[in-house]
Amino acid sequence: MSRDDGEAARHRAKMARRKAVQDAEVAGKTIEKGLLIVHTGPGKGKSTAAFGLMLRALGRGWRVGVVQFIKGAWETGERLALGPFGDRVAWHAMGEGFTWETQDRARDVAAAEAAWARARALMADESVRLVILDELNIALRYDYLPLAEVVAALAGRRPDLHVVVTGRNAKPELLAAADLVTEMTLVKHHFAAGVKAQEGIEF
Amino acid sequence: MSRDDGEAARHRAKMARRKAVQDAEVAGKTIEKGLLIVHTGPGKGKSTAAFGLMLRALGRGWRVGVVQFIKGAWETGERLALGPFGDRVAWHAMGEGFTWETQDRARDVAAAEAAWARARALMADESVRLVILDELNIALRYDYLPLAEVVAALAGRRPDLHVVVTGRNAKPELLAAADLVTEMTLVKHHFAAGVKAQEGIEF
Repeated sequence: MSRDDGEAARHRAKMARRKAVQDAEVAGKTIEKGLLIVHTGPGKGKSTAAFGLMLRALGRGWRVGVVQFIKGAWETGERLALGPFGDRVAWHAMGEGFTWETQDRARDVAAAEAAWARARALMADESVRLVILDELNIALRYDYLPLAEVVAALAGRRPDLHVVVTGRNAKPELLAAADLVTEMTLVKHHFAAGVKAQEGIEF
Repeated sequence: MSRDDGEAARHRAKMARRKAVQDAEVAGKTIEKGLLIVHTGPGKGKSTAAFGLMLRALGRGWRVGVVQFIKGAWETGERLALGPFGDRVAWHAMGEGFTWETQDRARDVAAAEAAWARARALMADESVRLVILDELNIALRYDYLPLAEVVAALAGRRPDLHVVVTGRNAKPELLAAADLVTEMTLVKHHFAAGVKAQEGIEF
């Protein structure tokens, strides 16, 4: 047996052992359930990953609901792309912009309450399999909505409903109720190098 | 002035100061350029956020190229969703599965080289504005491709081309060349609670 053949054989044996471990792990996971997913942290990609999940769900023929708690009705690439999916996406941009744009706390609270009412209606719609609550964490952080009530409604969702919540500074009570939590960490950002927010990338 | 009015006025003044800071920051960013974006880390959402970016780019009328270095031609929700966009997405699933599935290093290397050739062709196509190199980091980690050559090609991309590279364990040389790096950190995962990979969520 040549040296190359020996290396190939060792690689094959190592990978066969790894495959056995992997297969056993997969076989050990049998539960199917609607997940409560949280994307938080200061890095990019929290809402973007939620929209990637939406694309996957649409590919599987699901209906999807989106409520944006901060963003208003301004034009974004992700929204423009959804035309072909017709009424399979119920998209509600219920925000009025960032808190420093409105400069009016009472108005921010009223907008958050209206968005939450819309979120509850989508969660109650049995034709919807995935609901994205974009930037809900911001509304919770500023106490625009009653945390205990929101977490109870999310935790008490129907068994087959997946919900994604995005935004920095997710509350510990929400993380405790979640099935999957990813923190997006900022390692390097082009804004720091003077690059502006660009169409097609940031919006 | 009532106590409520006083609080509203303080909130307004605080937000006005914050808006001034925010506006100055935005005004200071003037550069437009194609970005090299890296999604790495052990958490979920690396590829999913790349597909969210693809959706945004499609909404802006761009053409997009995708090369998957590990995943083979199996069916995924994200791919099934792209029908309406026709030839605006060039999708190449060039992998042959995970290393522990093939158990053949020479075959893995050949697949990675073919995928990289496809990636270079997409990057050279001036009609393509966004190229996603899904799990390229895995191919680099296992030395299936020459790191210096790959990083030089990515760093030397055309000025208006955005490239997204995904996968765990991104090489430091790649991070050094990147404009935007996000690390997806695993905080809590439903697999640990025995929940299986589910259609519409994981694939």
